[in-house]
Amino acid sequence: MRVDGVDYRAAWWDGGLVRFIDQRGLPHRFEVASARTVEEAACAIEDMGVRGAPTIGVMAAYALALASQLGEDVDSAFERLARTRPTAVNLWTGLRAVMAAAREPQAMLGAARAYDDAEVAAAEAIGEHGVALVKSGARILTHCNAGWLAAQDWGTALAVVYKAARAGLAPFVWVDETRPRLQGARLTSWELLQEGIDHRVIADGAAAYLMKRGEVDLAITGADRVAANGDAANKIGTYGLALSARAHDVPFYVAAPLSTIDRATATGDDIVIEERSPDEVLFAEGLDGEGRMTRVRLAPAGAKALNPAFDVTPHGLIAGLITEAGIVDASTGGVADAFGRAADSGRRRS
Amino acid sequence: MRVDGVDYRAAWWDGGLVRFIDQRGLPHRFEVASARTVEEAACAIEDMGVRGAPTIGVMAAYALALASQLGEDVDSAFERLARTRPTAVNLWTGLRAVMAAAREPQAMLGAARAYDDAEVAAAEAIGEHGVALVKSGARILTHCNAGWLAAQDWGTALAVVYKAARAGLAPFVWVDETRPRLQGARLTSWELLQEGIDHRVIADGAAAYLMKRGEVDLAITGADRVAANGDAANKIGTYGLALSARAHDVPFYVAAPLSTIDRATATGDDIVIEERSPDEVLFAEGLDGEGRMTRVRLAPAGAKALNPAFDVTPHGLIAGLITEAGIVDASTGGVADAFGRAADSGRRRS
Repeated sequence: MRVDGVDYRAAWWDGGLVRFIDQRGLPHRFEVASARTVEEAACAIEDMGVRGAPTIGVMAAYALALASQLGEDVDSAFERLARTRPTAVNLWTGLRAVMAAAREPQAMLGAARAYDDAEVAAAEAIGEHGVALVKSGARILTHCNAGWLAAQDWGTALAVVYKAARAGLAPFVWVDETRPRLQGARLTSWELLQEGIDHRVIADGAAAYLMKRGEVDLAITGADRVAANGDAANKIGTYGLALSARAHDVPFYVAAPLSTIDRATATGDDIVIEERSPDEVLFAEGLDGEGRMTRVRLAPAGAKALNPAFDVTPHGLIAGLITEAGIVDASTGGVADAFGRAADSGRRRS
Repeated sequence: MRVDGVDYRAAWWDGGLVRFIDQRGLPHRFEVASARTVEEAACAIEDMGVRGAPTIGVMAAYALALASQLGEDVDSAFERLARTRPTAVNLWTGLRAVMAAAREPQAMLGAARAYDDAEVAAAEAIGEHGVALVKSGARILTHCNAGWLAAQDWGTALAVVYKAARAGLAPFVWVDETRPRLQGARLTSWELLQEGIDHRVIADGAAAYLMKRGEVDLAITGADRVAANGDAANKIGTYGLALSARAHDVPFYVAAPLSTIDRATATGDDIVIEERSPDEVLFAEGLDGEGRMTRVRLAPAGAKALNPAFDVTPHGLIAGLITEAGIVDASTGGVADAFGRAADSGRRRS
């Protein structure tokens, strides 16, 4: 997608290093950063310089290709990258796509590029399939950032919004701010402003109220991992949102590429939920009155917090899973079966 | 309750002016402020220097007494104070208690003091009744601040926690941070630290996840207005919490003094929901690294937000209403009827 008229992906290979849009500075500071070593790339993932399940997968894939280019031990690089974040399965999908290539620099870089391009094509296809769900003027609620920053290009949930906008459907978006890291307020709002799409940021707690008032037509989120039975892990707060959607008959969809479906994970109970630093809850970061990035303490000194980064929405609450191969009914489970053939034959990543 | 060994109420009369703990500075700065005029008192309520339905009622009562002491027109003062905030019915209850007194300074001040003392007695009684719901080691989830800052002393939801702690039941509290104004992270956490009660602050979106994991035994919130049928308006996010509690069979209680029950409001649909400045969503305030209170912009310049301050939880989702007259089953509606006699005869405020 374009930033000030220039086309970007969230992360890319640039002649011997991995470049990425540093999402920690957004929306206040647009900055392209570089990872020159596997360790720098791993830290960028851990510290959420790059984030969003599909983008993490591509970043890890390029980092593995980087190890090969630098003549480093590829297996060690794999181990290091694999333990950066536990919940997004795309991290593994991306790493495995590169590990499956011949162990030489050009082949591994080629595999990473192919994986990247396939993710971008998947994101665009997700948007195209999802448009079928959007009526003219639809008010779509989303959580966290499932936009192009999270999926290299287009996005997952937001790909639907972008394609709907291009189709002249004039969608409106309710943006959950998504505490604690505020990916909604910071990133989704920034993306939507860049695309000129009308939206309002809301506190996460306001979603149920808006649904009750009849002001939400559709809810779409991304996912970090979809289990074989259709249960979907996504940013903390998604599950409560799905419960509210069910109570108000608002269709709740999950948009994710097939790379997010983990056939090796039977149900949501088997998904490891990352617990992040309590400081993400106890502090917030933004621009002070003089335009400086500043971190402020919200809670009193001595207060403790718990910070689970994800939750799991059972498949029974999900109206459908929007993938590059079409929309499948997730509520009956068996997503992996429904997509088995497509996942096996469609992309040939490994 | 005690702050560093000194007993305080949230607002009080002090020889010709109204003093209050300025809740805008908490938890970082404990400061007693003064309202020397009705306008100063009204602004303190509007800008949430004092907040919490019962405390707002007492503040307004003293401010009306202040008008009388200053020889000002009491009816104009009533009008000014009545339009400070629309949702909490206690504002009206407090004002009416003073308007019912003889129109002379000492009688009006006496009525305000009596109203204050009755609210404090009610808060303590709420705590005593509520203890019956608390098992040893219970994990209680609460939203916003329904503690002594919000209710002059003891609190409503937190009165139950404080009485349970004094009864040796060692309650643990999950504290919803409560965006956008973070009354949970700022005020509830501060109160609990002062009382030495174990707790963890969580992002609002984490409550449903913790319930699903079986880590919440009981949810209790306060209320800003309870309609005659038992529907309860409270801080935005309460309704979604109640939906999550229902989905997980977690008993959801509302704690409020009888002054919060508005017999003139038939159902929750009739409650006016205050909409506050979008800036409360787009910014956050806290202490910077050098200990200065600093406001930081979270969302990009140009982003818009919607900021409804309250929502309404239908009585069907409320297991019971904890009042100073006992716990009533709110799920069947008819709260005002159940409490009519107690409300009419028990307190003689007007």
